[in-house]
Amino acid sequence: MTLNGVLVANRGEIALRVVRACRELGIRAVAVYSDADASAAHVRMADDAVHLGRSAASKSYLDEDKVVEAARSAGVDAIHPGYGFLSERPSFAKAVESAGLTFVGPPSSVIATMGDKAAARALARRAGVPVVPGSDEVGSVDEALAAAEEVGYPVLIKASAGGGGRGIRPAGSADELRTVVAEAQREAASAFGSSAVYLERALQGPRHVEVQVLADTHGSVVHCFERECSLQRRRQKILEEAPAPGLDDRLRESLCSAAVDLAREVSYVGAGTVEFLVEGEEFYFIEMNTRIQVEHPITEWITGLDLVAEQLRIAGGAPLSVAQDDVTRRGASIEFRVNAEDPDQDFLPSPGTVEALELPGGPGVRVDTALMAGDVVPPFYDSLVAKLAVWAPTRDQALARGRRALAEYRVDGLPTTIGLHRRLLDHPAVVDGTYDITTLETWLAGGT
Amino acid sequence: MTLNGVLVANRGEIALRVVRACRELGIRAVAVYSDADASAAHVRMADDAVHLGRSAASKSYLDEDKVVEAARSAGVDAIHPGYGFLSERPSFAKAVESAGLTFVGPPSSVIATMGDKAAARALARRAGVPVVPGSDEVGSVDEALAAAEEVGYPVLIKASAGGGGRGIRPAGSADELRTVVAEAQREAASAFGSSAVYLERALQGPRHVEVQVLADTHGSVVHCFERECSLQRRRQKILEEAPAPGLDDRLRESLCSAAVDLAREVSYVGAGTVEFLVEGEEFYFIEMNTRIQVEHPITEWITGLDLVAEQLRIAGGAPLSVAQDDVTRRGASIEFRVNAEDPDQDFLPSPGTVEALELPGGPGVRVDTALMAGDVVPPFYDSLVAKLAVWAPTRDQALARGRRALAEYRVDGLPTTIGLHRRLLDHPAVVDGTYDITTLETWLAGGT
Repeated sequence: MTLNGVLVANRGEIALRVVRACRELGIRAVAVYSDADASAAHVRMADDAVHLGRSAASKSYLDEDKVVEAARSAGVDAIHPGYGFLSERPSFAKAVESAGLTFVGPPSSVIATMGDKAAARALARRAGVPVVPGSDEVGSVDEALAAAEEVGYPVLIKASAGGGGRGIRPAGSADELRTVVAEAQREAASAFGSSAVYLERALQGPRHVEVQVLADTHGSVVHCFERECSLQRRRQKILEEAPAPGLDDRLRESLCSAAVDLAREVSYVGAGTVEFLVEGEEFYFIEMNTRIQVEHPITEWITGLDLVAEQLRIAGGAPLSVAQDDVTRRGASIEFRVNAEDPDQDFLPSPGTVEALELPGGPGVRVDTALMAGDVVPPFYDSLVAKLAVWAPTRDQALARGRRALAEYRVDGLPTTIGLHRRLLDHPAVVDGTYDITTLETWLAGGT
Repeated sequence: MTLNGVLVANRGEIALRVVRACRELGIRAVAVYSDADASAAHVRMADDAVHLGRSAASKSYLDEDKVVEAARSAGVDAIHPGYGFLSERPSFAKAVESAGLTFVGPPSSVIATMGDKAAARALARRAGVPVVPGSDEVGSVDEALAAAEEVGYPVLIKASAGGGGRGIRPAGSADELRTVVAEAQREAASAFGSSAVYLERALQGPRHVEVQVLADTHGSVVHCFERECSLQRRRQKILEEAPAPGLDDRLRESLCSAAVDLAREVSYVGAGTVEFLVEGEEFYFIEMNTRIQVEHPITEWITGLDLVAEQLRIAGGAPLSVAQDDVTRRGASIEFRVNAEDPDQDFLPSPGTVEALELPGGPGVRVDTALMAGDVVPPFYDSLVAKLAVWAPTRDQALARGRRALAEYRVDGLPTTIGLHRRLLDHPAVVDGTYDITTLETWLAGGT
């Protein structure tokens, strides 16, 4: 029961990525597009395309009904949601299931469980996976204060329904906590539709390390090793690498096993990412992303697996193409996210037209770009426009290759973060692999 | 004694390849250029560039004195010859050595030995490596007729100083041989400066399989497995793959060991390629190319090695970065040569201006292109303008990826061989990996 046709319910580089995987598997790929994307690369490259609506995402890529209807009218048997947009909305996965179509991802119930951060923490505890010391949901300031005494200051107040780093507030003391709890509840209600919040201990300069897992519908689960994603600005990753430089083999094995245990506990299906904070020899589960990740190419580089093809095969009912012993590592890979933003103007999004484009090439260089020369970056969507991922036998060689490839990469017509990456590769903590989740923001603020 | 600066004595994609390797190793790269290449990519990308002379290769890239003088004036300590041009001229390697510079390749005496095909065959026999049944040099028609009786018809008459598939004539009978020997001698004299010729038995539809070797100045020699290069037109390769699809592990091991034995026998230094014809379970040495090969990327894909970086390290006196046991294979890789030629007009070279360019991207795709949008393909040089090399876990997946990447590849402004490759991937013998050196020409002539 291989898939015959897939609606690619996304845009930009991830839509291209899915179209490419479909093409290689002989599956018909149907794109969707908004007014602004009528001539976008993901539309040009697909076998067919369905117009969704106006440029605003709410009128097109985020409109669940329109997307399901597009799949029906296109006659496909599955929908791949990419990342962002509808990819982690249980309601959408459920609508796809109800329409008799295959959702390329886990069942809607699993998305719902993992999307509820308190439920996910409870599940992790059941699976024996350590979580950041924290509380159950707190309903009042008094409950929050009592919980914080247990957890220990400083704490973070997090929305139960949150994700992607949004809706998180720190409190260093009881006084601070008193002022922010109500704010956090209001913000959670307006951003996520639920005012539920909980507390977590705020770790001091941990590293963000995540584990890629794959699970099929026949009960097999494998991990594909880890990714180090600590270089973040406003909790958005900008550079990722695999393997994680600070991890010894024992800790790596523990992290990867924990991720598999968690995936088994929730009866996971598809590609997913289990995110951890690592502090010294301790690690703590923070959340699971129930979709393909932006930074999946670095895992593909070191393992040789095609994660999007695996997603599609799994959705078609096939068993995993590999057993755990077949998933091996080779060398080191680094991904640089290219955003249409101006780092010199506080990362102001900078839509515009690509006047000239020269892509890096040669050995160990992979480019996933949604842009070709003449293309327009519309102002309506995420600013990620391309990704450069390099590979080399060793981390030092991968850094040298990254510098070389970034020097070759030329985008004329709009500011991008390419120059930022060039400078970042000279940062001592990046060079020696000792950075943590505070490093990038400290550096951007003028520190070192 | 790492190299500080390297003169890249070539143009086009291989010059870029060497510049990239230099940059990653922290070595200053100095380009050379003719009038026609003043603004070419290899010049733009190098740290410095030296003008050689007029556009004709004989007045620029083939002028040994000018190239050595360019290296002296640029203050570099080594010259990388790339492939073609001066790369296999013993006189040039000797001039580089005499100037006190390092030639990135084997000693001039080794180039001379391997450039003399009769000497190379004798050396192979000494090393216990099988050669195609053939003769010593023949000086007269009578000697040729006597030798042919020994060797067995059909035979090929080959110039001792020949190479690259040039200067080869077939003879199916004594009558035919009588007429072509004198012609072959005259042609050899005018093309290679020596009238010496010899005979070889003409094999019937063999496969061309070659083995990559690396040897350092400390006596270590390793092989990096083989490449299948039978898809040739007029003895020019157009598509190569690794591993060779028709080879079982025992035969692979024999071929690779033979290549290492030969390299040891000649005290080889640097990267080199030992070419064989394979017929059934038998294989025969045909020649050794004492330079980097056009198709080296497919070996880099499956082994993870950087062959050009190895060349530069070896030239700097470093030991090989790997022992034989460290050279491992993963997956399958295919290279498609993109020539500025019109397959519909008997492969007429088609110089011109690149009006628009869209490169394939995503997983398992490598592009080595000398051309960016707006660049001009001058009429003076080889028509190879780019290479696409794909990788995937299995050969079938690599074929699918090749089809996908070729479909994405767009060059406007001049005809190329991209469309030919798209059609070639539907050829049954290419699909099942059973092609031999006659397959492509038969197909081009309208056969199957």
